[in-house]
Amino acid sequence: VFALSPVDATALPAPSARSLQSFEALKNMLDGRASNSAVDRLSYARDMWPLALLWIRQQKCPPPPDVVVWPTSEEEIVNIIQLARQQKLPVIPFGAGSGVCGGTWALRGGISLDLKKLDSISSVDPVSQTVTVGSGVMGETLERRLNAGGYTLGHFPSSIYTSTVGGWLAARSAGQLSSRYGKIEDMVVSARVVLGTGERAQSEVFSNNGPSQLPLWLGSEGTLCVFTQVCLRVFPKAEAQVFRAFEMKSVEVGLEAIRLMFREGLRPAVVRLYDPFDSALASNSHSKPEAESPAAMTRWALTKLRRHMAPHTLGHPVILNRLQKAFSKSRLILMFEGEPERSNDEEKAARAVCLQLGAVDLGQAPGKVWLKKRYDVSYRMSTIIDAGAFADAMEVAAPWSKVLAVYSAVRKAAAPFAFVLCHFSHAYVEGCSLYFSFLGAASNERESEVRYHRLWTHALSAALAAGGNVSHHHGVGIHKAEAFQRSLGAARPVLQALKRRCDPDGILNPHKLGLE
Amino acid sequence: VFALSPVDATALPAPSARSLQSFEALKNMLDGRASNSAVDRLSYARDMWPLALLWIRQQKCPPPPDVVVWPTSEEEIVNIIQLARQQKLPVIPFGAGSGVCGGTWALRGGISLDLKKLDSISSVDPVSQTVTVGSGVMGETLERRLNAGGYTLGHFPSSIYTSTVGGWLAARSAGQLSSRYGKIEDMVVSARVVLGTGERAQSEVFSNNGPSQLPLWLGSEGTLCVFTQVCLRVFPKAEAQVFRAFEMKSVEVGLEAIRLMFREGLRPAVVRLYDPFDSALASNSHSKPEAESPAAMTRWALTKLRRHMAPHTLGHPVILNRLQKAFSKSRLILMFEGEPERSNDEEKAARAVCLQLGAVDLGQAPGKVWLKKRYDVSYRMSTIIDAGAFADAMEVAAPWSKVLAVYSAVRKAAAPFAFVLCHFSHAYVEGCSLYFSFLGAASNERESEVRYHRLWTHALSAALAAGGNVSHHHGVGIHKAEAFQRSLGAARPVLQALKRRCDPDGILNPHKLGLE
Repeated sequence: VFALSPVDATALPAPSARSLQSFEALKNMLDGRASNSAVDRLSYARDMWPLALLWIRQQKCPPPPDVVVWPTSEEEIVNIIQLARQQKLPVIPFGAGSGVCGGTWALRGGISLDLKKLDSISSVDPVSQTVTVGSGVMGETLERRLNAGGYTLGHFPSSIYTSTVGGWLAARSAGQLSSRYGKIEDMVVSARVVLGTGERAQSEVFSNNGPSQLPLWLGSEGTLCVFTQVCLRVFPKAEAQVFRAFEMKSVEVGLEAIRLMFREGLRPAVVRLYDPFDSALASNSHSKPEAESPAAMTRWALTKLRRHMAPHTLGHPVILNRLQKAFSKSRLILMFEGEPERSNDEEKAARAVCLQLGAVDLGQAPGKVWLKKRYDVSYRMSTIIDAGAFADAMEVAAPWSKVLAVYSAVRKAAAPFAFVLCHFSHAYVEGCSLYFSFLGAASNERESEVRYHRLWTHALSAALAAGGNVSHHHGVGIHKAEAFQRSLGAARPVLQALKRRCDPDGILNPHKLGLE
Repeated sequence: VFALSPVDATALPAPSARSLQSFEALKNMLDGRASNSAVDRLSYARDMWPLALLWIRQQKCPPPPDVVVWPTSEEEIVNIIQLARQQKLPVIPFGAGSGVCGGTWALRGGISLDLKKLDSISSVDPVSQTVTVGSGVMGETLERRLNAGGYTLGHFPSSIYTSTVGGWLAARSAGQLSSRYGKIEDMVVSARVVLGTGERAQSEVFSNNGPSQLPLWLGSEGTLCVFTQVCLRVFPKAEAQVFRAFEMKSVEVGLEAIRLMFREGLRPAVVRLYDPFDSALASNSHSKPEAESPAAMTRWALTKLRRHMAPHTLGHPVILNRLQKAFSKSRLILMFEGEPERSNDEEKAARAVCLQLGAVDLGQAPGKVWLKKRYDVSYRMSTIIDAGAFADAMEVAAPWSKVLAVYSAVRKAAAPFAFVLCHFSHAYVEGCSLYFSFLGAASNERESEVRYHRLWTHALSAALAAGGNVSHHHGVGIHKAEAFQRSLGAARPVLQALKRRCDPDGILNPHKLGLE
C-alpha cells in the first residue's frame, strides 16, 4: 500500500539510511557512476505522467529515488541487483523518463537504474535482417543509424526523441506506423534480461515451441526483470510513401472504411481517423491543412480559447463538449509505404473502399502535413501546464463491434471533467485503438488534481464497461495498476506467482502493475 | 523420471487401484461418459509418434490411460480436475491424437480427457471478424463451417482432418499457409482455460498491456492448463489463388529468392522450396508434375526402392544419401491469395525476384498439383510402417544467416541412419523452417528402434548446434522434452515455478515438456 502524495521538490527528504550505507559500495562497483545529489534525485523522481506535472507547477514532486546509478554492462546490473537484494533496496529500471503512467516513480525510494549507457548498436545482419542493441539506446539514435544503412525499425512512437528501446519493450510501445510494422512486441526477435534474483535469461530466437516467456518480460515495466540487450527485426527503408486523406460522412463511416481495408488485407502504414470536432479544428484552425489532433487541440486551446473565451471555460467543459454536436464529418489520413508500385496499388484499393462509402478525396496534403508535425504534440505538455490547464490522453483498444460503444461511453463519462477529442489509429483485422485527448482546468491547484482524478476514474471505467481494454500502448505503471489487476481476473495469482519467482525480495519497481 | 518402454497391447495392465476407486464417481459426474474398457484405453494410449507405430507393429503400445472421459462442458472439466487432484490421478488433455511427439501418452496412467465433445462453433461476428469455438472442434469441420459463410481461418496443417483447435493451441501448430496467415498463436484473439488447480482463467481480448499470459498457455501441451474455448480471427475466403513454380539453380539461390521476397514485403500464402533430390523425385517419378515431398518420397521408397533394390537398401542410407550429390536444381512453389488484382501483382513481383536470380519458370501446374495432394503425406505413415521401414519428420527453424548451416549439419548427422530429404517453408522476414523427412530401416525390430533413436539424437543435436531451434510446429511432447528444457537455459526455473502454481499436484500431463 502506498500513498500517492508529493514531496517538497525544493527540499527533498534525505536518502534512506540503507541507501547511504550502500552508496560507497555502489560507487566503487561502478567506478563512480552513482549519485545521490538532490539534482539527480529530483531529475529521476518523475516521468511525464501529467499528475507529476501538476505537482511540479506547485514545486512538489513524486518521492525521489535515494540513488541514481549508470551501469555500463549486464554484469554491473547483476552486481547492483545482488547488492540491492542484500540491502532490501528497491531497484527502478529507468530508460528516458517519457512514460505517462508513473512507471518509474520511486514510491519507496531505492535505486534508479538508468540504462542509457547500455547503448551499443550492432551492425545490421543483412541476411537475417536483425540488429542487436543495448536496452538503453535512444529511439531516434537507433532509427538514424538504421537509416544510414538503408534500413528502418518501423517504430515511431511520438516519444522517439526521449525514449529507449528498453523502455519500449518494458511498456509495450506502439509506433505511428504500427498498422504495417506491428507494435514493439512484434519486432522483437529475442531479448536478454536480468531477473530480480540476479539470474540472467535469454529468450530463444525463433521460440516456436513450448510456453513462450518473452511475452512475460514484455510489458512487465521493470517489475520482473531488467532488459539488457535486444535483437530486433529491421526492414529496408521504404522506397515510397503514398499519402491520401478523405473527409468521411461520420465517425461510423470512417471506422467502417478502415475495417473494410483490413478485411481486404490492406495494411496502411498510417491510418488515422479524427472525430468530427477534432477534424473541424484541424481543417479550420489554419489556412494550410493540419491533421495532428492533439497538436491542433493544444494550439486551439492556447490561442482561441485563452484569448477569446473566459479563462474558466475549460473549467466548464460540458459546454465545449456540446459544441461538438455541430460537427459530423470525420477526417481520415492514410499512408502506404514500401515498394513504389505496390504502395500505389494499395493506395488505389484503399481509395476505392473510401469512395464507395461516399468519402470526399482531400488529396495528399493533409497526410504530408501530418508527417511533418507528427511528434510535436508530445513536446507541448509543459506549455499547457504553464497555462494553468491540464491535458492527458487515454488510449484503449476494442474489437470493431465495440469501438463505437467505447467512443460514446468515454465521451459521455469524461464530458463533465474535460474537453474531449478522439482519434482512431493502430488498426487491426479485429479492431483498433481509440486515442482520447482530454483538456481540463479548474479554479485552483487542489481542484485541478481532484478533477484530474475524477476524469480518469470515470473515463476508464466507462471504457472498460463498454468493452475496451486497459491500455493500448501507454502501459500501466501506477496510474492504471488497479484496472490492470482487475482485468487479469483469475490469471492474477499466476502473475503474482511469477513475481515471487522472478523477484523474491520484491525489490524490482515495487507497486507498478499493482505487483508487490 | 520415466521409462520409455512399451506394454503388451494384447494384454494391457489393469487400471490402477486409485482409478478404479474413482471410476464410478467419474461416470456419475459425466452421465456415463467414462470408460476403462481395454479398447478405449488402447485407442488413447498412443498418438502418431512413429516410435509408437514401431511398437504397434510388434503388438506393443505405450502405457495406456486408466480411464477415458468425454466431458461436454467447462464445468465438467473443473469437476474432473478437482476429483483428479483429490485422487492424485494424472489428467491428459486429448484432442484427436495426431501429435508426433508423444504429447498425449499416459506415462503414469490416469485420465485421458477427450475434449472433442466441446464442439460448439459460434456464428462469425461479421464486424470484428472472429469466431468462438469449443476447444474440441475438429479442424476440417471448422474450416468447412467457416467456408459456408464466406470465411476462412487460414490454418491448414496437414493433420487438419484429425486434429482439434485445442490441440493446435496446445502444440503451437502451423498450417501450410502460415507465411500469410501466421501460426495458430497469431490467430488467437482470446482463450479460456482451466488450470490444474481447477481455477478458470480467460485471456483479455486485445491484451496490449502488462505481461501477457496467453503465450504461456499456448504451447503448454496440457501441462499447465486445459483449453476450453477459443476466440479466433477469421478472414474472408480468398477470391483468387495465383500459383507459380520455378526451378532454382540451387538450394542457396532458392533460399535467397524467398528471403528477398519477404524483405520486399511480399507474403505468399504458400512458399515451399524442395531440396535437389526431393525436387528430382518430384519431377521424375511421374509423368505429371508432383510436388509434395514426403508423399513423393514415400511412393518412391515403396515402389522403386523395394522393387529394384535390395530390401536392406534403406538400412544403408549412406549410399542413397550420396546419390543426392548428382542433383543440384531446387524446386520452388509459390501461391498468392486474396483479392485477385493484388494477388496477381504480388505474384508478378515475386516472379521478378526469381527470374533475376536465374530461375526457370515452371508455370502454374506444380503448385496446383501440390494443392490437390497437400494433406496426403500425413495419412501414409501406416503404409511405410507396414513395409517394415520407419519414417519421421524433423522441423526446426533458423534465422536466414543459419539456415544453410542447419541444412548441411543435419544431412550430415542423419546420413548414417536414414535417407534424408528436406524442404523449406513457413518463411518469415528473419528466417524460415526446415522440414527434414527421414526414411530408414533395419534388419530387425530392435535394430529399427535403436537406429530411430540414434537418428534423432544426432540430427537434433546437429540442428541445435548449427543454430536451429528445437521445433517449429510439431511441438515438444516427450520426444523433444530434454532438448526443450536445455533450450530454456536460465528461464527454466521460471517455467517450473509456473508449473507449480498452475498445477501444484503435478496432475496435468506429467513429464511432457520435461515438466513434472
